[in-house]
Amino acid sequence: MTTTVTRLFDIDLPIIQGGMIWCSGWRLAAAVSNAGGLGLLGAGSMTPELLEEHIRKCKAATGKPFGVNLPLIYSRVEEQIDVVIRKGVAIVFTSAGNPATWTPRLKEHGIIVVHVIPNVKSALKCEKSGVDAVVAEGFEAGGHNGREETTTFTLIPLIREAVNLPLIAAGGIATGRGLLAALALGADGVQMGSRFVASEESSAHDAFKQKVVDTEDGGTFLSLKAVMPVRLIRNRFLTEVMDMELKGALPEELKQFLGKGRAKLGMFEGDTDEGELEIGQVAALIHDIKPAAKIIHDIMAEFESAKAELRAL
Amino acid sequence: MTTTVTRLFDIDLPIIQGGMIWCSGWRLAAAVSNAGGLGLLGAGSMTPELLEEHIRKCKAATGKPFGVNLPLIYSRVEEQIDVVIRKGVAIVFTSAGNPATWTPRLKEHGIIVVHVIPNVKSALKCEKSGVDAVVAEGFEAGGHNGREETTTFTLIPLIREAVNLPLIAAGGIATGRGLLAALALGADGVQMGSRFVASEESSAHDAFKQKVVDTEDGGTFLSLKAVMPVRLIRNRFLTEVMDMELKGALPEELKQFLGKGRAKLGMFEGDTDEGELEIGQVAALIHDIKPAAKIIHDIMAEFESAKAELRAL
Repeated sequence: MTTTVTRLFDIDLPIIQGGMIWCSGWRLAAAVSNAGGLGLLGAGSMTPELLEEHIRKCKAATGKPFGVNLPLIYSRVEEQIDVVIRKGVAIVFTSAGNPATWTPRLKEHGIIVVHVIPNVKSALKCEKSGVDAVVAEGFEAGGHNGREETTTFTLIPLIREAVNLPLIAAGGIATGRGLLAALALGADGVQMGSRFVASEESSAHDAFKQKVVDTEDGGTFLSLKAVMPVRLIRNRFLTEVMDMELKGALPEELKQFLGKGRAKLGMFEGDTDEGELEIGQVAALIHDIKPAAKIIHDIMAEFESAKAELRAL
Repeated sequence: MTTTVTRLFDIDLPIIQGGMIWCSGWRLAAAVSNAGGLGLLGAGSMTPELLEEHIRKCKAATGKPFGVNLPLIYSRVEEQIDVVIRKGVAIVFTSAGNPATWTPRLKEHGIIVVHVIPNVKSALKCEKSGVDAVVAEGFEAGGHNGREETTTFTLIPLIREAVNLPLIAAGGIATGRGLLAALALGADGVQMGSRFVASEESSAHDAFKQKVVDTEDGGTFLSLKAVMPVRLIRNRFLTEVMDMELKGALPEELKQFLGKGRAKLGMFEGDTDEGELEIGQVAALIHDIKPAAKIIHDIMAEFESAKAELRAL
């Protein structure tokens, strides 16, 4: 399949694996790229040294294009940018920050820059900053999220109207029907996070992967809005947070309760009661843990059959 | 186009106009039905006497099928049910209540019953109660909304998995691409509210219609969660509510501030500052006020061209 997104990255299928903290190291990124999609290393949970190691291993494991996701709020992002430049990474996805800050530096080195956005204003800023493509991420997405709470179904056409950049839809997508619907709404490709958490190659703890499979309708919630909105699985930790919020806890109190390392505790170390478990609403549609290549194969098979059904209407 | 939804209602196109308080009287419902969709009278803002009058006028204005939307929380719902039975209304959409309560009575009289749901649990309850079809309404929809906050993109496939009933998607849909995406996700038809508020035949006040057209990305918010979650346009009234909520206002204080008749004030009388303006996120994609027939015509034209684009992929 050819779209502006497959052409931009020189890949076979318009399926991008979201760069996620604690879940997407070189094994997952290489597996996705080898299967025809675009794998991303999630640098948000890596020191610059560890990122360098993952880039090296990913290069050894695939000859196909792959990228790095850099959350711009990370304290050592400048060192990480030095690493991606020095190691010759061709594609960088930036998120959680201003695209104007680092895009020029990355573009100077010929790097393709994609930025993750939650609203029209950010899309316009991306266009002005010389970004090559945008990931428009809806309210249903896991992890950090925008304050407008615009859902994928509304956000994709809005961004399509606002800018001419290649458009990658994210949030709520884990299936072939989801891919088809995203393209119908005007996207040129999709980014999926939650679906790849529950893959064999993801570095998520097995207990977290199982938790994703077990999550049902209504099993996640966009919480911590007073600090920074983040979508999490409803576990003991989130219930405590929601209780605190209901009782009017101040941002400082919430930050103190959060402490450090909650995401690592839950997603990487497998404490699914006390850890922070970032996942999208679409977890309710994920029923198995399987190899990344099989995930992509099944998505494309469903995509083709759903497309044939639509054709018959 | 033929789907289980067009067959159920004996209509030409799988487009249903949501039954909305203060906006959807006989003029709008008849116009939608005459254009090949299914028009609904919004009984939530009508006395039983007024509902009877609207049914009579709608019958005079169209020979095509139309229906009535009954919010089950309305205090005079039993009298309204007597009216729809006495007047021989063939299709009833129920919402905001338990489908088990009134479905048997309506079915006894041969009425097609559709229930509006926000989650899987309600879908299963509908199936058990003998409901003929469900409207699955996502978080992005205007007006009253579920507590799970599941978006259309995630909700439609979840309901498709859970039940075999004809499935109508609602929330975020106002365009031909939206219709195509909803069908791609597994829906058999769509219900649109916001789009028809901004129609010539809607009984919304002109100032409210204009406000819908002027609404941008992020211009609505799901608020009043402590009372009953409702998506509204961000105006002076909503800003005051959100300030109260931020300061930890109790449900009783919020109810008192709301008072009576806020929705009528905003939507029907046109006080767009102090009134409650129920609308979906998709208002940001609505740029004009036009006749209902033209809305449907434009949706189908966009649907066909987007379908042709997908076919070429």
